[in-house]
Amino acid sequence: MAQINPSYKKLAAGYLFPEIARRTREFQAANPAADILRLGIGDTTEPLTPAVVAGLRAAVERQGGLEGYSGYGDSEGIPELREAIAREYQKRGTAVTASDIFVSDGAKPDSANIQSIFHAGSIVAVQDPAYPVYVDSNVIAGRTGEASGGCYNGLVYMPCTEKNGFFPALPDRKVDLIYICSPNNPTGAAATHPQLKHFVEYAISQRAIILFDSAYAIFIRDQSLPHSIYEVEGAEQCAIEISSFSKSAGFTGVRLGWTVVPDAVVAEETAPGEIKGLWTRRQNTFFNGASNIAQAGGVAALTDTGQAEMAGRVDFYMGNARIIRDGLDQIGVTAFGGDNAPYVWMRTPPGIDSWAFFDKLLSECHVVGTPGVGFGPRGEGYFRLSAFGHRENVEQAAERITSRLVL
Amino acid sequence: MAQINPSYKKLAAGYLFPEIARRTREFQAANPAADILRLGIGDTTEPLTPAVVAGLRAAVERQGGLEGYSGYGDSEGIPELREAIAREYQKRGTAVTASDIFVSDGAKPDSANIQSIFHAGSIVAVQDPAYPVYVDSNVIAGRTGEASGGCYNGLVYMPCTEKNGFFPALPDRKVDLIYICSPNNPTGAAATHPQLKHFVEYAISQRAIILFDSAYAIFIRDQSLPHSIYEVEGAEQCAIEISSFSKSAGFTGVRLGWTVVPDAVVAEETAPGEIKGLWTRRQNTFFNGASNIAQAGGVAALTDTGQAEMAGRVDFYMGNARIIRDGLDQIGVTAFGGDNAPYVWMRTPPGIDSWAFFDKLLSECHVVGTPGVGFGPRGEGYFRLSAFGHRENVEQAAERITSRLVL
Repeated sequence: MAQINPSYKKLAAGYLFPEIARRTREFQAANPAADILRLGIGDTTEPLTPAVVAGLRAAVERQGGLEGYSGYGDSEGIPELREAIAREYQKRGTAVTASDIFVSDGAKPDSANIQSIFHAGSIVAVQDPAYPVYVDSNVIAGRTGEASGGCYNGLVYMPCTEKNGFFPALPDRKVDLIYICSPNNPTGAAATHPQLKHFVEYAISQRAIILFDSAYAIFIRDQSLPHSIYEVEGAEQCAIEISSFSKSAGFTGVRLGWTVVPDAVVAEETAPGEIKGLWTRRQNTFFNGASNIAQAGGVAALTDTGQAEMAGRVDFYMGNARIIRDGLDQIGVTAFGGDNAPYVWMRTPPGIDSWAFFDKLLSECHVVGTPGVGFGPRGEGYFRLSAFGHRENVEQAAERITSRLVL
Repeated sequence: MAQINPSYKKLAAGYLFPEIARRTREFQAANPAADILRLGIGDTTEPLTPAVVAGLRAAVERQGGLEGYSGYGDSEGIPELREAIAREYQKRGTAVTASDIFVSDGAKPDSANIQSIFHAGSIVAVQDPAYPVYVDSNVIAGRTGEASGGCYNGLVYMPCTEKNGFFPALPDRKVDLIYICSPNNPTGAAATHPQLKHFVEYAISQRAIILFDSAYAIFIRDQSLPHSIYEVEGAEQCAIEISSFSKSAGFTGVRLGWTVVPDAVVAEETAPGEIKGLWTRRQNTFFNGASNIAQAGGVAALTDTGQAEMAGRVDFYMGNARIIRDGLDQIGVTAFGGDNAPYVWMRTPPGIDSWAFFDKLLSECHVVGTPGVGFGPRGEGYFRLSAFGHRENVEQAAERITSRLVL
């Protein structure tokens, strides 16, 4: 008699984004004339850039010809793309090489799957608030107990608060796997070199592994801040980095990302190269490579022209972030982020919790955002506004917030 | 201290295809003049068809424009593609609907991941020989003991032999999950309606789940044979079907497949719809949808023109299979398959095992194939030849086999 994986039942029933969609749908049904503006999900809105379109187009034509057609590729990705990604790391002074790069169909699958190469009994630490996939993938893998009070038993939460500038202190007990996202989703906080160094030293001393999500690195404006954890000495011994073309090149739908696993990363009783070998084996068994067309798009995005165009898109979205921050400043709302990340993290008004503010913003301004508590218990009392949107929509949303929100 | 998932160490060290690549490389190095022909990996060689290229091209142009750009899609796939796939099932008289279809980046990832929604203690049955991913994914998930004599302890092997026409008898003990691939890789055998009915009735009576891989269904020439397990009454209560655009549309590199999870599929103590809900949740957490460009290619492949072109490709590869079978017949080698599947499964000469025959074929004919034992212990004494290849290469390989192989 087949039985299901019982860990699925531990997952909080109302997943964040479906619940947002449900409330929005209900509001729209009750208010059919309302022109709802969406700053909820961090989804790109601007078209692929000309260099990327040219790269994709050429790949399609190649696949339609006898000479250019290619079947299965290496699950690790095409060499040209792995080399182009490694070059970006090298430009920032790191020793990452093409053989460390594992191309994938996005940072989300890699963030969710990376735990599977580690022991089922691993103790896991996450930032609170954090991108929900780190938590959910470990719940499903059976590394937690039941949830109570918004926290899963057995999971170690590292509070990210106004007081610590939204970068956590070291875990308060022994842990094996540590998820860090910088620039952070949802708080928009970008870690400094000393902050990351503190964690790298801790991880090496404890032989813990840092799973570092740098999907938003391209949005960093302050060039003194690290874009990759490998800019920190020793990180190659203890950190795996996951990143993405989703937000930089607008590939949320095209699907392309990568994971960096240096030879030097080691766990308990593993030799150098062994963790990398495990990830290779995992990908060879469970994955068959990212789409060859998407990979050609990635190569195009990393050419000089492609990068200049990506920088333009990043500037555009960061311009949106500025408009949102300015709007909030104007009405005296305390807000964070939006400087080095495409998310603005605002404090909800006194006495109004995250979900109540969601409803308030929707009914008063017809604007959708994301309740902070959806990212973890320390997100309560905060609210995330995404800078992804067409300019006129973001301007209009900011205008509505400043003129209609009752504070 | 981070520790690795110890199940990885149970995997047989020399994975089949890397070992083939290694021996081929060594032979080429020692014989630089040898023009090696590859009938090893089942990898498509003919270009994408015009309708598919047009569909992909249009998708690329759409993504480059403000109007047509789309970001994140549903992880289940775009509605147009889910509907087009469901229509193919309906044409064969099944009740599969679009809401049962989960579009993915290929049958391999789905075949490997599907086990994760079931209990870690599930007893798993596989055909022997079988596509290695079913076994390896369950080894990694910890559902087996160590390997001995080519078999993993705790795994139930269902022998597929000449005597049973390469379709197995029911498992010899109680099992929870049953993998069946038809038409089969590597044997090329396609299951009949009564054969599948026997398993469906067994699964319903035991409340076991059949994981049915139909990636090669389009190659079935005998139209009395089922293309989908849902052509068998009751299968919707006990079967999940996995399939692919890889071999039909030549998408081995483009990456596109799907899984069918009907509402009626139930396990122990689950309500109708619950297993489907689990797979939905799994995909929403670990996956972010197949590439929107690849999906547009899938829609194009399923138009009338696209299907006519796919049928042409299938005929072409099946013509290759005929050439290989005829060549083997000519020299008196006993062979199977190649009628309803793009694989020919030949008996190795007396006293020559699978790997010895690999070396013999390579050195005498400069042809690469796949040792049957790589698919399981009952594959010993057999050898797989793939019908994927350019016509002139397949003709030349058959010519070399008939004229040079020393029997």
